[in-house]
Amino acid sequence: MDTICAVSTPHGMGGIAVIRVSGDNALHLVQQRWQGKPLVEMASHTAHLGNILDTHGNILDQVVLTVFRAPGTFTGEDVVELSCHGSMWIQQQVVATLIDAGCRAATAGEFTQRAFANGKIDLSQAEAIADVIASQSQASHHVAMNQMRGAFSRQLNALRSQLLQFVSLIELELDFSEEDVAFADRSRLTALATDIKRVIHSLASSYHDGNAIKNGLPVAIVGPTNAGKSTLLNTLLGDERALVSDIKGTTRDVIEDTVVLQGTLLRFIDTAGIRESTDVIETMGIERSFKKMDEARIVLWMIDTTAPINELRNFHTQLTMHCHDKAVIAVINKIDAASSQKVTNELKALQFNGKAIEISARDGKGVEQLKQLIIEQASLPQVGDDNAVIVTNSRHYHALVRAGEAIDRTLSGLNTGLSGDLISQDIRECMHYLGEITGEISTDDILGEIFAHFCIGK
Amino acid sequence: MDTICAVSTPHGMGGIAVIRVSGDNALHLVQQRWQGKPLVEMASHTAHLGNILDTHGNILDQVVLTVFRAPGTFTGEDVVELSCHGSMWIQQQVVATLIDAGCRAATAGEFTQRAFANGKIDLSQAEAIADVIASQSQASHHVAMNQMRGAFSRQLNALRSQLLQFVSLIELELDFSEEDVAFADRSRLTALATDIKRVIHSLASSYHDGNAIKNGLPVAIVGPTNAGKSTLLNTLLGDERALVSDIKGTTRDVIEDTVVLQGTLLRFIDTAGIRESTDVIETMGIERSFKKMDEARIVLWMIDTTAPINELRNFHTQLTMHCHDKAVIAVINKIDAASSQKVTNELKALQFNGKAIEISARDGKGVEQLKQLIIEQASLPQVGDDNAVIVTNSRHYHALVRAGEAIDRTLSGLNTGLSGDLISQDIRECMHYLGEITGEISTDDILGEIFAHFCIGK
Repeated sequence: MDTICAVSTPHGMGGIAVIRVSGDNALHLVQQRWQGKPLVEMASHTAHLGNILDTHGNILDQVVLTVFRAPGTFTGEDVVELSCHGSMWIQQQVVATLIDAGCRAATAGEFTQRAFANGKIDLSQAEAIADVIASQSQASHHVAMNQMRGAFSRQLNALRSQLLQFVSLIELELDFSEEDVAFADRSRLTALATDIKRVIHSLASSYHDGNAIKNGLPVAIVGPTNAGKSTLLNTLLGDERALVSDIKGTTRDVIEDTVVLQGTLLRFIDTAGIRESTDVIETMGIERSFKKMDEARIVLWMIDTTAPINELRNFHTQLTMHCHDKAVIAVINKIDAASSQKVTNELKALQFNGKAIEISARDGKGVEQLKQLIIEQASLPQVGDDNAVIVTNSRHYHALVRAGEAIDRTLSGLNTGLSGDLISQDIRECMHYLGEITGEISTDDILGEIFAHFCIGK
Repeated sequence: MDTICAVSTPHGMGGIAVIRVSGDNALHLVQQRWQGKPLVEMASHTAHLGNILDTHGNILDQVVLTVFRAPGTFTGEDVVELSCHGSMWIQQQVVATLIDAGCRAATAGEFTQRAFANGKIDLSQAEAIADVIASQSQASHHVAMNQMRGAFSRQLNALRSQLLQFVSLIELELDFSEEDVAFADRSRLTALATDIKRVIHSLASSYHDGNAIKNGLPVAIVGPTNAGKSTLLNTLLGDERALVSDIKGTTRDVIEDTVVLQGTLLRFIDTAGIRESTDVIETMGIERSFKKMDEARIVLWMIDTTAPINELRNFHTQLTMHCHDKAVIAVINKIDAASSQKVTNELKALQFNGKAIEISARDGKGVEQLKQLIIEQASLPQVGDDNAVIVTNSRHYHALVRAGEAIDRTLSGLNTGLSGDLISQDIRECMHYLGEITGEISTDDILGEIFAHFCIGK
């Protein structure tokens, strides 16, 4: 493989920047621009102070050079890391001098792609690296870390060996089929396929939570505009947004509508249009809002205590119709004790079965309790267990769904006494889809698509 | 010293980020959050793969940890560098877990300040590190690199030993003064002081170029608005700005009015107001523009070939009055051959002693030749010589000026036969100012001011 190089640290100016070089010729090519102890004499995993030279042999920068010798490296190839001063100019010049010496500028994710190509990691682990880098919350980070460290791969490998076992049993059957031996193994086959099906379906269904963990748990705030909906949204976003900014980092546009509460990323769904087209809450207007929040898992129902009680009832009817699979929290924006009491009584009368909480959107009273309630209602799985696998990648999810369909066909084939070679085909298909996840089966198109979303230098 | 930590790589998300830890307890404190080979068993300058744990012992990230043992480190203290995945979240969490383990968040420039405090570098070298990181052009980078690598410090040390020699000679004189010995050394003293004066004045006067190299060589474009002045500015800025962006990096706002031409940073001075207040070029209006461009070293005089010849003459008179110390380039924006010839003839008749060039601002013809001419006229010193010292820091310049004044007083004292103890005082003052540059003499205020302008993590 040719030798690639790129700045691996974030784009911009800083104290130091790291330029990574990987390839069969990494040591030799860096040596062309190195003033210091010869690279061939350096032991693997050792750091050395020296100078990087430009094309004309002038000193470009004083750097710390670390050598990592194949195969015990990230890419599996010889790797050299140069820790230089973090000016943009130096970063550009060091890369330029390395390219001039014979390196090639790495494409996005190319280091990781090489780690995959050289069998250091499988494709799901490679994808997890991008997720680790992009993760904004403790939960998404933890899930991505687990995947990167191979928990998902181990499950897939376990499935693979079960499927191979299945295939060998089927083939045993086929070998003896002409001798018309008793199908003593059919029940064992069914048990095995059922077990495989259970695992695949459990993995696929974890995507519901996994997607919420990775992209944010969808939360909709509904209710009439004057109920304090936008004030609440600002309070929920603004406070935490400021907090996130204090720890210095997350890009403003990214958190525009998301917020991390107790390690969980929440994504607020804009239902601002709810009252625009209707002055009176009519069925049609509500209908439109409810469609918009179809993807929500939690609904915050802001109640205007000064609105006519009929409006409350109307809204409740719609909620029960649309939100049977969602956790609804009635948020009563308290104006005075009497009106709050009136609403509370009415909710009781309506047999509202969600949680209810009184807050004051204006002075922030009750907002902390509301946050607590949202987290409780999120009912996302605890991600503390290092072996728990949660699927967060839609590519993996769709492959799992197809693998699940193949295993379903296998089972129904076993039930209907389908011939062994046809059953074997379904099993092979199941293995194919699982192989797509780990990258055993992959095309350049798929790889290109995956690694294009990486940053350069990783 | 307590142990400090900070993200040293640029702010943002990237493939990897480096967190630096420095202090007597660096190894011990990082060990609290480290899963891998014990740090005490690691040799200096070796890299190790392992896990960083959070406060609860959960794995936060897989990192490459490099140990640098005192005193052969940047700060002179034990240093640990953690190369982690470059998500904002991980960067924050790794710093947080280290702080929880007992590290303190480093202030801006604190690593470099420790390098200075531990005698690894002097103050002028510390300042050069900030200049290296901020440098935008090859020339400014080269000057800063030279300073960082000690070329300036060596000159100052040489001066210091000369001054010490001087003091010892003076004191010899004082010791024998009561015995009324012949002042055989007075001429030697004068020669020595003259030599010191020459070096100090040469260093101080290099600031004229140094400032231009560091902050950009000031170039003013003057002339009536319809002469194509703004088109030319856009062509000069725009082309190169795009070029700079291609190499991916320099911040847009920083290069708003500066551009790097052949490794030299040019800073264009806005004289856009030149025609706003005057429809006819009157002395008063011109006067105002010329004042604005007082700091320019090169003046591009855009000539409108369609303007009345009287205007040209008027402008030339003003130029000769104001620009005697500046390189003036007459830029003739060619409309047609006849009008260009008329202007060229008139310039000859006026005995205009600057360079003249014909361009077409509209289609860019002649702009390359103009750039070449600007660089030639810039007449900045070649910075290829690794030992050439150019002062770029105003603090150093002002200290040199004061040191120069002290040595001037010494010389005039020698001439007027001032007593040895008074001369000795002037010499001590000269040493004091030079000591301010290297940081031998410094106050917390000065240090605070200097390091406050560093980035965090350096």
